[in-house]
Amino acid sequence: MNKNSPVYLDDLFVGAEFKSSEHQLDQEQIIKFAQEFDPQPFHTDEGAAKDTFFKGIAASGWHTAAITMKLMVESLPFQTGIIGLGGEISWPRPTRPGETLHAISKILEIVPSRSKPDRGIVTVECLTLNQNDELCQKFVTKLVVLKRPVDNLTT
Amino acid sequence: MNKNSPVYLDDLFVGAEFKSSEHQLDQEQIIKFAQEFDPQPFHTDEGAAKDTFFKGIAASGWHTAAITMKLMVESLPFQTGIIGLGGEISWPRPTRPGETLHAISKILEIVPSRSKPDRGIVTVECLTLNQNDELCQKFVTKLVVLKRPVDNLTT
Repeated sequence: MNKNSPVYLDDLFVGAEFKSSEHQLDQEQIIKFAQEFDPQPFHTDEGAAKDTFFKGIAASGWHTAAITMKLMVESLPFQTGIIGLGGEISWPRPTRPGETLHAISKILEIVPSRSKPDRGIVTVECLTLNQNDELCQKFVTKLVVLKRPVDNLTT
Repeated sequence: MNKNSPVYLDDLFVGAEFKSSEHQLDQEQIIKFAQEFDPQPFHTDEGAAKDTFFKGIAASGWHTAAITMKLMVESLPFQTGIIGLGGEISWPRPTRPGETLHAISKILEIVPSRSKPDRGIVTVECLTLNQNDELCQKFVTKLVVLKRPVDNLTT
């Protein structure tokens, strides 16, 4: 699939994979995000984090999710963008300072809409992996993807 | 449940509800978050957003999720914090600039751990509502919550 031309529902197939670039995560980013959105000691305070469940600083799961979204937006070339209705998210391991993340998105299912013939619902599994290919996040989501407009067929 | 004293697994019961304070969302916050984590026109550009699926600026779902986490941290007084293993998230409607969000968390299930007798898994449904009580996000999550340490029983 050519990443430079916009992709419509018609272009997708089950099993297609999209690999993102990398995001380097450091402690400063983790603390900054957590201070605003997830102010708990295991995300914001290196000293206090040692005595917690995580035994050291870990990124907020929502920070891992937000970075993953950035990586998906950059690597999935859908013409209408990444419009998610929701999904199932899990964090099998904490994301740590100094890790380098990338995302691999795979198409699991494509279902054309019955009520709205211009679109379909695409189920995507997105795995967020660190530099050792350890799984930091699994997200399975349903995305709205439009079909190619009919007047584009002749171009 | 007294919000000022730390809450352990032993203190929780199915049906318990926790209501958060409010978060006022404006367009500046929406654009700032999206520029970093979800750079798509319907989140970052008021003009361009009008011609998209959302017909105007909408917050990234991950922004709604991050704000919800902040509201959960503040309103759920678990002694060990909010430690989530994952969950199911959905965004039934877009969150718009100018909306005021609050979160209501409800305990659905409590299952003591078999392998680790010091803790349990608590299923929580967290609804994120705007000022008209319209549902912007539903998140059902499993949290790790510790039991009260035995040497605390006498205090």
